[in-house]
Amino acid sequence: MPTLEDVRRAAAQLAGRIHRTPVVTSTALDELFGAPLTLKAELFQKTGSFKVRGLLHKTLQLTAEERERGVITVSAGNAAGALAWAARNAQVPATVVMATTAVQAKIDAARAYGAQVELVDGDLIAAYESIRDERKLTGVHPFDDLDVITGHGSLGLELLDDAPGTRTVLVPVGGGGLISGVALAVKLVDPSIRVVGIEPETADVVSRSLAAGTPQKLPTAKSIADGLAAPVCGTHNFGIIQQYVDEVVRVSEDALLDATRLVMSRTKLALEPAAAAPFAALLEGKLQLTGPTTSVVSGGNLDVSKLY
Amino acid sequence: MPTLEDVRRAAAQLAGRIHRTPVVTSTALDELFGAPLTLKAELFQKTGSFKVRGLLHKTLQLTAEERERGVITVSAGNAAGALAWAARNAQVPATVVMATTAVQAKIDAARAYGAQVELVDGDLIAAYESIRDERKLTGVHPFDDLDVITGHGSLGLELLDDAPGTRTVLVPVGGGGLISGVALAVKLVDPSIRVVGIEPETADVVSRSLAAGTPQKLPTAKSIADGLAAPVCGTHNFGIIQQYVDEVVRVSEDALLDATRLVMSRTKLALEPAAAAPFAALLEGKLQLTGPTTSVVSGGNLDVSKLY
Repeated sequence: MPTLEDVRRAAAQLAGRIHRTPVVTSTALDELFGAPLTLKAELFQKTGSFKVRGLLHKTLQLTAEERERGVITVSAGNAAGALAWAARNAQVPATVVMATTAVQAKIDAARAYGAQVELVDGDLIAAYESIRDERKLTGVHPFDDLDVITGHGSLGLELLDDAPGTRTVLVPVGGGGLISGVALAVKLVDPSIRVVGIEPETADVVSRSLAAGTPQKLPTAKSIADGLAAPVCGTHNFGIIQQYVDEVVRVSEDALLDATRLVMSRTKLALEPAAAAPFAALLEGKLQLTGPTTSVVSGGNLDVSKLY
Repeated sequence: MPTLEDVRRAAAQLAGRIHRTPVVTSTALDELFGAPLTLKAELFQKTGSFKVRGLLHKTLQLTAEERERGVITVSAGNAAGALAWAARNAQVPATVVMATTAVQAKIDAARAYGAQVELVDGDLIAAYESIRDERKLTGVHPFDDLDVITGHGSLGLELLDDAPGTRTVLVPVGGGGLISGVALAVKLVDPSIRVVGIEPETADVVSRSLAAGTPQKLPTAKSIADGLAAPVCGTHNFGIIQQYVDEVVRVSEDALLDATRLVMSRTKLALEPAAAAPFAALLEGKLQLTGPTTSVVSGGNLDVSKLY
């Protein structure tokens, strides 16, 4: 289990390579939800989401030999661009295995950041493993990895600095990467701060894993919050979530859309639906706030073709 | 004609009552358009657009007697909320005449800021004049007013401070309120800085007025950039535009939509189509940039019901 010292070291290593993202407040949202809210605007992070924190931290931990050979990941899209960016920043060659059906903009983004993109029909994981072994690349899991989690922990430290006195931290939940890092950092600093995760009802693998007591898989996971539609909960992530997350609540697709529109109209942040998940829970009355609260606006990679 | 001293006094009067909005940069946009671009993020201004600058400045110039009686305006929607906010800030009662067909969110916004909203079927202007005279209110024109223009000038001074060395300033154009204030301020500080206006082809009253040599009216003006769809060019605005604006270019509806999506995806700002007009001109090749350029992101009141 990573220590607070590990998270602080990760934060120091990332400083200067990534943005220190701003925080945003809104009187209208405070009045609506009855608590002083701080929005950690991680949508302004490099590549438009928090993901580069963990993936860059991971890449920086590689040995000289691993760095020279390069890294590889498999992605439906979101992690592809983030790993490509991180690898370029760390001067490590990157290969990304993506489906031929992936969104073209996401393929283009990975290429623009300098990654070699391998487009695959059929079994993505088999292709990934075969390329990895053949080219002796280091595989990077987008979330189920302790170095990735520790890197994401830097966000937890930052938001505590940005909003001193915060009593509750709200975090969108997909496969558990972000919340495991943030909860670890927050609870190691102050165990009395409440950490709540929010995931879509239609992609609720972490709630199901907590209920079952072991990481689960879903046959399918689909949500308007595509960044949260992970069909698996990571094993490392699960252990940390079990220990450090106070509660995970589930929100409807309608509430995710309403929350995205609400937060966008009030803050003028172009957040993606995943990032609005905490506000969906507030809209649905699934969460009661007591005292200062910080919500992680995890990313802004929304599908702009669906605007107007 | 207002002087630089007038604009500086307006800026000083507004300071502390409104936001000093941030500026945003994007490597991707710089590379795409071949010049260092600074985006003045006025969408983060109070009520979500630049409009409060001029309207608050106007309200603050009223005599004690006028303040006591209150102000009135007539609006299709956008100016209603801004005047209501400005009047509340200046502790002046406000009445807003709106059509019964106005967007409900805009009616609600004006009411939420404390204005008395008079909903009218039929002739808006006649109703406005009758209420104004009957109740002895001071009429406020949303843009054709020298105090409003001087207030908008504060934005011109601010963006020069925010982006020293800027050689071109790009401003979205509706009825001419914003660009007359910004051009006045910029040219009084440094006449060698180029000021370019951008308006929709389908709502091009300022281009037509410049061609005709007098302020024109359009029978209809409709655009996806609803904030720019003014059917008239203000008289005071026209004189300043003739004297101080180097060029006004016109953009297509398709380019406005493409530009909104582009800037949103690159910057994560939830800008409205009006605010993307300068980027529409760049996408269509209607503008060539030479050197550092500042673009006014005029507002963020986009129709979020059209997202997803």
